[in-house]
Amino acid sequence: MGLNENGLNKKVSMAVVKRLPRYYRYLSDLLSMGITRISSKELSQRMGITASQIRQDLNCFGGFGQQGYGYNVELLFKEIATILGVYNNYFTTIIIGAGNMGQALANYENFEKRGFKLIGIFDINTDIIGKTIRNVEIMHVNEIDDFCKNNHVDIAILTVPYQNTHEAAEKVVSLGIKGLWNFSAMDLKLPYEDIIIENVHLSDSLMVLGYKLNEIKKLKVSENNINMSNT
Amino acid sequence: MGLNENGLNKKVSMAVVKRLPRYYRYLSDLLSMGITRISSKELSQRMGITASQIRQDLNCFGGFGQQGYGYNVELLFKEIATILGVYNNYFTTIIIGAGNMGQALANYENFEKRGFKLIGIFDINTDIIGKTIRNVEIMHVNEIDDFCKNNHVDIAILTVPYQNTHEAAEKVVSLGIKGLWNFSAMDLKLPYEDIIIENVHLSDSLMVLGYKLNEIKKLKVSENNINMSNT
Repeated sequence: MGLNENGLNKKVSMAVVKRLPRYYRYLSDLLSMGITRISSKELSQRMGITASQIRQDLNCFGGFGQQGYGYNVELLFKEIATILGVYNNYFTTIIIGAGNMGQALANYENFEKRGFKLIGIFDINTDIIGKTIRNVEIMHVNEIDDFCKNNHVDIAILTVPYQNTHEAAEKVVSLGIKGLWNFSAMDLKLPYEDIIIENVHLSDSLMVLGYKLNEIKKLKVSENNINMSNT
Repeated sequence: MGLNENGLNKKVSMAVVKRLPRYYRYLSDLLSMGITRISSKELSQRMGITASQIRQDLNCFGGFGQQGYGYNVELLFKEIATILGVYNNYFTTIIIGAGNMGQALANYENFEKRGFKLIGIFDINTDIIGKTIRNVEIMHVNEIDDFCKNNHVDIAILTVPYQNTHEAAEKVVSLGIKGLWNFSAMDLKLPYEDIIIENVHLSDSLMVLGYKLNEIKKLKVSENNINMSNT
């Protein structure tokens, strides 16, 4: 039985879902600036997305816009937050691996603003165990079983070395954690239907940057050649 | 004059470009395993992308597949690396801000494998200046002008605090750097046509994970309700 057949959810493509956090960010900024209404044109200019794309995206959830009046920012924000599961709600997270990346993420206070609450950090390095980052204690991984018995954890953030990722993933899944946010440079796959994994590949975004730089460079070379052949 | 009009580049949509690093990763893994030929079906299963999507994507660049023979892995890898600008070529990068995120990225040796060479790290914290990460020295930001005079830098990775991002961006642009990879939680915008900026929003991916977790949860609640109404 699919999500859409039982009417629980409107059909939303993953392409649209992936843009929702962006809407969430911009709308949240507008709210904090006290802006309560915005035209799709203005939202479009701020976000760098076409107005027609915005209308199309938001129509997936029933619209929220009134012709000539623009969008009600608060209403739209609430709706998107609800779809993302973070309206008056948060996901509890733990970090496995308190190296540089783990600590950078633990320090990232924006996660709370987005509806993700860090409740524990785990590592094996005894030098840092007992320290706290933003009031969250770094505990030894040996304590993770007890911790998960006493605390509901929605998401484990995996910032362990590549070769330990699979083991760490199996461990947290065995403790009932359903969401894995994986930072090791692999596409982590597990044979469980109800486990959600998001693999973060930072360098993918860097390669896109490289591609665009190259395109600009090629364009310049081409323009120079044209200028030279014209003179 | 657009890129496509002068025949320099085939028309490749950004949606396809964004998938190229993924192809690059998988093909590079296949090569290192000694696999020289692969069917679109098998590649599809490994990558979790439909075979028809793969054929469609790769057709943008002229195909590379022979009906019944599959893809030549090395040829395809070379072609994608070339499109991404990293075939027998690399982009030079510097990191501005050697906090946890900057150090995590500096330690990330995969960047080199992808064609990005780290040549300098800059910070203002005198406690860490002079230290090295993977043989790259952390220098004081005061030295960045001289450094950029003596070294060609393609990309600056910005891992500075939010409030310093704009200033840091203007600085590196004034030094002739054309590519900015920005990790502060803002959509950095600059009024220069030839500057390429990729803004990394880590929590966007976390929010997508949250969305999927929520969908699974709703599906379960729905199934339980149906089971209860059937008994």
